[in-house]
Amino acid sequence: MDARFSRRMTAMQPSSIREILKVTEHPEIISFAGGLPAAELFPVDDVRTAADCVLSQLGSKALQYGVTEGVPALRSAIVREMAERGVSCGVEDILVTTGSQQSLDLIGKVFLDPGDTVLTENPTYLAAIQSFQCFEASFAAVPTDDDGIIPEAVDELASRLKARFLYVIPNFQNPTGRTLSAERRRALYEVACARDLVIVEDDPYGKLRYRGADVPPIKSWDEQGRVIYLSTFSKTVAPGFRTGWAVGSAEILSRLVIVKQAADLHTSSLDQLVLERYLRDFDNAAHVARIRAAYGARCAAMESSLAAFMPSGYEWTRPEGGMFLWVTGPGDLDTTALLPEALGENVAFVPGADFFPRGGGRECMRLNFSCSSPDLIEEGISRLARLCARVGEKAAAR
Amino acid sequence: MDARFSRRMTAMQPSSIREILKVTEHPEIISFAGGLPAAELFPVDDVRTAADCVLSQLGSKALQYGVTEGVPALRSAIVREMAERGVSCGVEDILVTTGSQQSLDLIGKVFLDPGDTVLTENPTYLAAIQSFQCFEASFAAVPTDDDGIIPEAVDELASRLKARFLYVIPNFQNPTGRTLSAERRRALYEVACARDLVIVEDDPYGKLRYRGADVPPIKSWDEQGRVIYLSTFSKTVAPGFRTGWAVGSAEILSRLVIVKQAADLHTSSLDQLVLERYLRDFDNAAHVARIRAAYGARCAAMESSLAAFMPSGYEWTRPEGGMFLWVTGPGDLDTTALLPEALGENVAFVPGADFFPRGGGRECMRLNFSCSSPDLIEEGISRLARLCARVGEKAAAR
Repeated sequence: MDARFSRRMTAMQPSSIREILKVTEHPEIISFAGGLPAAELFPVDDVRTAADCVLSQLGSKALQYGVTEGVPALRSAIVREMAERGVSCGVEDILVTTGSQQSLDLIGKVFLDPGDTVLTENPTYLAAIQSFQCFEASFAAVPTDDDGIIPEAVDELASRLKARFLYVIPNFQNPTGRTLSAERRRALYEVACARDLVIVEDDPYGKLRYRGADVPPIKSWDEQGRVIYLSTFSKTVAPGFRTGWAVGSAEILSRLVIVKQAADLHTSSLDQLVLERYLRDFDNAAHVARIRAAYGARCAAMESSLAAFMPSGYEWTRPEGGMFLWVTGPGDLDTTALLPEALGENVAFVPGADFFPRGGGRECMRLNFSCSSPDLIEEGISRLARLCARVGEKAAAR
Repeated sequence: MDARFSRRMTAMQPSSIREILKVTEHPEIISFAGGLPAAELFPVDDVRTAADCVLSQLGSKALQYGVTEGVPALRSAIVREMAERGVSCGVEDILVTTGSQQSLDLIGKVFLDPGDTVLTENPTYLAAIQSFQCFEASFAAVPTDDDGIIPEAVDELASRLKARFLYVIPNFQNPTGRTLSAERRRALYEVACARDLVIVEDDPYGKLRYRGADVPPIKSWDEQGRVIYLSTFSKTVAPGFRTGWAVGSAEILSRLVIVKQAADLHTSSLDQLVLERYLRDFDNAAHVARIRAAYGARCAAMESSLAAFMPSGYEWTRPEGGMFLWVTGPGDLDTTALLPEALGENVAFVPGADFFPRGGGRECMRLNFSCSSPDLIEEGISRLARLCARVGEKAAAR
């Protein structure tokens, strides 16, 4: 029966994160595995009021088909948001998507033929790997360091390979939590111009900065229309809406619209209108400030717990924002093998290997800090640390 | 710059329906072009109550990420709905999709490699052609008559071509409004078994029957797990939710889930929970009965207006349900060329050629009757009939 399915299905496997999430729903498990925002911070009452306004005033519009590009008033709100982020654009430059995950799928469709090369950070976002795998992409994994992806390495790879685009997460990267410096963003844009590369700039976390100063998006330098900027309301309002957006040149956006027509016609009218109303009637900046304060405290709790409990030989990143922290263990550590043991100790993480499109990273793990309280973080890290110490002792005894 | 884009983009064009819809938003135009449900019949107040219940009782769940397969309670409601339609299945057989349009995209991903053949009715749903074109499918267009697709013709084509699947809309087909007879459904299933074909049974309109008796879905005979049944809440509740579903074997459904993860993670949690609550707390069967009565009257108004006004040489289908009626004019008619003239007369339709994956159908047009009142239908058809008469006189004078 396998012969019935397309070639791409041999490469595509269920996301290990989503499979882990099914296990970690057990209430005893302290999970650092997901990428969930803290549900207790969602602006539920305000969204409820906004939904009631929309359904009482615009009910039939909220329930009817809409245009593929998205609800115009929401796109206007996104234009204002982009201006705050340092990107000047118009309503016609915005496509509303079914979560920013959908942008990855649409970009794959518009740019990728089987065998085409995508440049990514190494490691990179697991679900981006999956989206591009769906179009049978090859991956060229670009080296990164504490300042993010290395522009010279992009240049070198782009000189040898005909890459369709570079996919990059400049702010509080998933999975490492690292931020690409302003100098490197500019250098990356210059490499892209010199090598005629499209840059896909994925920025779901940029508003969640806990320390340091904002860095302008790569898109803010984009005079040539070669950067597609992606973001989402999933982290700043709520992910249940499945509402994100893409900003791109007319040439690229018109093609994204065509493939979105065939993918789902348009994003939920109700969700778009409720979001628009919520953004108009409530102070989302104050809401984001509350999220930032809470997540910042959680990030700090995780860092201090790691410092207090982890055995020697372990290092971790110090994110300036976002939802993830990246731990690197001793070279002989295998976090994929460690995970079942961790689940036995009622603590969960995502093994590092899942984020490396071309292999490696078995000594690493991604820890999420946004959806556990500081107390739970301390308890969870102490469980994890005890396990790591035990595994290290066993390895030393061999 | 075109060299930047994937091969599929050369074949993919904006949906002419969606382009026409932009023009027909002008209030003077009587549009038979869209496929919109009647917005004035949406159960807005009940949805508003349901949304308020969900956000007051399940707020953080409604705004959080969910599982790719869909909200379990909604999938249970779909299982009950499927039982009413004559299909016995369990929650594990259901995937909630972002509109049933998304199922077409996911099915394309799971089954199609470039150049693979898809069997379709001739004519067929325009946006299905687009979805499968996105995976560089070839189309084999199967002859149809007043009873729908001809099983012997499927058999003959399947014996010559290695087709990945057959795509068929058995109830009140889009664009023709025709219904596939029970005998043919059974014969089609037998052909599929003999030729090892997968059948994609798309049934968005089945609940909208105005006369005659329900015919069981092809899926109701499916002992081999070779039928993927698709439906949606777009026509029975409202399309703004973008919530549909697929029913399939474990083998197929597990693959649809994998590609849906990469496409949009999951369908809006809020929309799914509001729909589930609405279906639980309100009498949707009574609502569907109201839609049926209104659309049935509109269908009758369109038939009697066509009979009263259209010049000789025109024929049309007599749908037993759904939203569309199909008009065939004299052999020398070109409805693609007629459309701009019709827009000049403030009436719109979709030219037939758009629905033929391998060409033809220029003498046909699709008329939608669900979203105009009987009075507007009479006025619109009289405008269209005057235009057709004038065009016929000109052709005769040449």
